[in-house]
Amino acid sequence: MSERAAVGFIGLGLMGGPMAKNILKSGFPLTVYNRTRARTAALAEAGAEVAETPGALAAEVDFVCSCITGPADVAEVYLGDDGVVANARPGAVLVEMSTIDPGTHRQIAEAAAARGVDYLDAPVSGGVTGAEAGTLAIMTGGAPAVFEQARPVLDAMGENVVLMGPVGSGAVAKLINNMMAAITNAGVAEGMVIGAKCGLDAAQLQQVLMASAASSFMLRMLPDFTLRRNFDPGFTIDNQTKDVNLANDLARELGVPTMLGAVAAQLLRSAQAEGLGDRHIAAVIQPLERLTGVEVRGE
Amino acid sequence: MSERAAVGFIGLGLMGGPMAKNILKSGFPLTVYNRTRARTAALAEAGAEVAETPGALAAEVDFVCSCITGPADVAEVYLGDDGVVANARPGAVLVEMSTIDPGTHRQIAEAAAARGVDYLDAPVSGGVTGAEAGTLAIMTGGAPAVFEQARPVLDAMGENVVLMGPVGSGAVAKLINNMMAAITNAGVAEGMVIGAKCGLDAAQLQQVLMASAASSFMLRMLPDFTLRRNFDPGFTIDNQTKDVNLANDLARELGVPTMLGAVAAQLLRSAQAEGLGDRHIAAVIQPLERLTGVEVRGE
Repeated sequence: MSERAAVGFIGLGLMGGPMAKNILKSGFPLTVYNRTRARTAALAEAGAEVAETPGALAAEVDFVCSCITGPADVAEVYLGDDGVVANARPGAVLVEMSTIDPGTHRQIAEAAAARGVDYLDAPVSGGVTGAEAGTLAIMTGGAPAVFEQARPVLDAMGENVVLMGPVGSGAVAKLINNMMAAITNAGVAEGMVIGAKCGLDAAQLQQVLMASAASSFMLRMLPDFTLRRNFDPGFTIDNQTKDVNLANDLARELGVPTMLGAVAAQLLRSAQAEGLGDRHIAAVIQPLERLTGVEVRGE
Repeated sequence: MSERAAVGFIGLGLMGGPMAKNILKSGFPLTVYNRTRARTAALAEAGAEVAETPGALAAEVDFVCSCITGPADVAEVYLGDDGVVANARPGAVLVEMSTIDPGTHRQIAEAAAARGVDYLDAPVSGGVTGAEAGTLAIMTGGAPAVFEQARPVLDAMGENVVLMGPVGSGAVAKLINNMMAAITNAGVAEGMVIGAKCGLDAAQLQQVLMASAASSFMLRMLPDFTLRRNFDPGFTIDNQTKDVNLANDLARELGVPTMLGAVAAQLLRSAQAEGLGDRHIAAVIQPLERLTGVEVRGE
């Protein structure tokens, strides 16, 4: 392109902030919107325009990206009176990157199609580190031609950019990812508490397990959070609970029994009940530690 | 050492066979015993002596290694009338490498100590491939001086050779490993079945999940087994059930709730009930596939 497409970004949270910054860095003219306006300051300084409403943003750009929180917020931003769909330019592409259910994506995609606007669901994995480094995995759902059109914008934010299938498929992949990760994370907690209760050195145990069949991304993260007793988010218990609930809802619609998914949701709910909702997901170990009178810590 | 210590190896199964061979390769004079004598042929040809009973083997060597199956078999081989403990040389070191409960190890260690014989529990992780390549992780429990004494023999079989604590600590680490791996493996199955039910490409899903937070050793193995519909063991559902049961028993003794460990045991039992006990652990997905009418397969 001789002139670069204009991009809008809605939702400048822990993930959205650095994602929007990487779009700007890649040379796209950028307009941003955030409910709490103060969060737009850094991007405005870096050269982004600031819109007053999601609709005003949508009216100005070729691509709308968003990274919000749950299904209800996403539906409001897209389908509300001054929302994205009602104000998007014909031929624009909407790229919704929050972790929500596939049904909400399909609903918005239909409303967009009725106005000649294309839609992709494109949730991401890789955490704040991946968002900052532009190395996110982006699991996309939508039509292949629309995916190709949006590809340069997605490539500005991620490294593993994959089209999984029609609209909703990115969300399915992401919910599967988060349910598997939650199961693994809670399984790591159960095992490490058994080890602590037997007096094993937690750091040494984590190392030997990482060289064995129990090895996982969640186990690899253990030293940074549990072993150092650092439960600052990052990705919170509340957010993981939301995602595992969505995954279990999806499985229920599909008629797929998710025994471990259901138990993982209960363990997360126990952690929430203990007031740990705003802590890092590694804190799912804390109720178990309290019940058994041990702490999993180490160098 | 100018003259190398004599080593005995009991139990020449899928794991024990290649482990014994690596001891021989490292230059130790080796005596072997196997209940089914036919299995000693390959090692005899390679230069090992063959003993008639575990006791006869123990009487001839400085180190006894064994890799058997469950706690009952191990107890018989070690504590039986013509067993290892009654016939071991004073000053010998016994190295029991099966995956069993820490209590049985402690019981044998006490009986050995009463005869002036040292004992290590040293279960392994890494599968048949690791056994053949001599790259096993070996999780050892015992006295530091005894561990150092046995180290050259252990190094002949493994790469990650670690002393976890007193006798029984190796078994604890190994049971934790196998319970975590079983939870992760069954969680992978639940997630992949949701994906199949939504029509996602299984191979592509596995790839994007491996680049995300769900990444694990068990997920990495998926293409070799589930995706290729190859459920030949390797490590069987029956063996993993035994290990997860032992881990849950240990947790019960310790008073540690293992919600996910308990559910993983039930899922394994369901697979056993469907006649899958002698299949690879990846076959834990099959009951879920049958219930939902999908198959997780791909290139």
